[in-house]
Amino acid sequence: MYVRDKEGIAKRLKRLEGQIRGIAKMVEEDRYCIDILNQIEAAKGALDKVALLILEGHLKGCVKRAIKTGEEEPVIKELLEVLDKFIR
Amino acid sequence: MYVRDKEGIAKRLKRLEGQIRGIAKMVEEDRYCIDILNQIEAAKGALDKVALLILEGHLKGCVKRAIKTGEEEPVIKELLEVLDKFIR
Amino acid sequence: MYVRDKEGIAKRLKRLEGQIRGIAKMVEEDRYCIDILNQIEAAKGALDKVALLILEGHLKGCVKRAIKTGEEEPVIKELLEVLDKFIR
Amino acid sequence: MYVRDKEGIAKRLKRLEGQIRGIAKMVEEDRYCIDILNQIEAAKGALDKVALLILEGHLKGCVKRAIKTGEEEPVIKELLEVLDKFIR
Repeated sequence: MYVRDKEGIAKRLKRLEGQIRGIAKMVEEDRYCIDILNQIEAAKGALDKVALLILEGHLKGCVKRAIKTGEEEPVIKELLEVLDKFIR
Repeated sequence: MYVRDKEGIAKRLKRLEGQIRGIAKMVEEDRYCIDILNQIEAAKGALDKVALLILEGHLKGCVKRAIKTGEEEPVIKELLEVLDKFIR
Repeated sequence: MYVRDKEGIAKRLKRLEGQIRGIAKMVEEDRYCIDILNQIEAAKGALDKVALLILEGHLKGCVKRAIKTGEEEPVIKELLEVLDKFIR
Repeated sequence: MYVRDKEGIAKRLKRLEGQIRGIAKMVEEDRYCIDILNQIEAAKGALDKVALLILEGHLKGCVKRAIKTGEEEPVIKELLEVLDKFIR
């Protein structure tokens, strides 16, 4: 894996863990559904941001290396497969 | 909040916390980007499932009550606002 | 079907048809991929907006009627099934 | 723009135009909301498929060329910006 800011991603994931615990607490306390849904949406956004940072690293690392060595076909194929999941 | 299976949601969120820690570990260990992205997508799916369970409870609880008492306009408005975020 | 502004939805769909033809023209003219992708994203946004208007009508029409007559279980079930597709 | 199967994409977009007209007809005929929503979801899926084909061409064309000539930074940056829209 090649990412610009591994520490930054670790911090985001730590914060996200806290968000998930926060959502669990809201459920436990029977908080208003819409407020819980908004927190779930915020957690999804945080996950998407981490995904984009990993994608950036992948493009600048593995994909770049594969293209430079002429072996990009399988690497692009698997990248499109994971993008298919994210986009749909 | 009104949900059919509060304990089930709590378990899902506990598992999701573990998934987030798992993703952090993969980043820490420089695991292959595509594998990390697939785990992030799985965590998003788990969040979506919790959201749907909360939505079910909201429709069967708050939305139903509001319609029965003729005060559904603001409740439907805020439901559509949160659905707008989830759908987009 | 019960929607507030049927004509407005018809106009949105007419415009969307034009957007799709526009995307086809861009592909035909070998326009830059990123520009085409941005137009596709805009068309998805337009589709989502129509979906939300239909959802609004459904909540204020069919779901409301079903709750008033005490027959909401199957109606809420199928609503959650379609929301599952949109959210994921 | 570099895509493997330009004609195939043109056909998909032509079919999608027909899907949009079909949705408009369903709205005109006051068809059941859930059926209309399912058609909208299917049209979104068709748009996503076209986006993935364009993305494939972009990776194998513009991104590859930029990496080969050492000018990938701006190309990867704009790719991540459009992916950010699709993923969120």
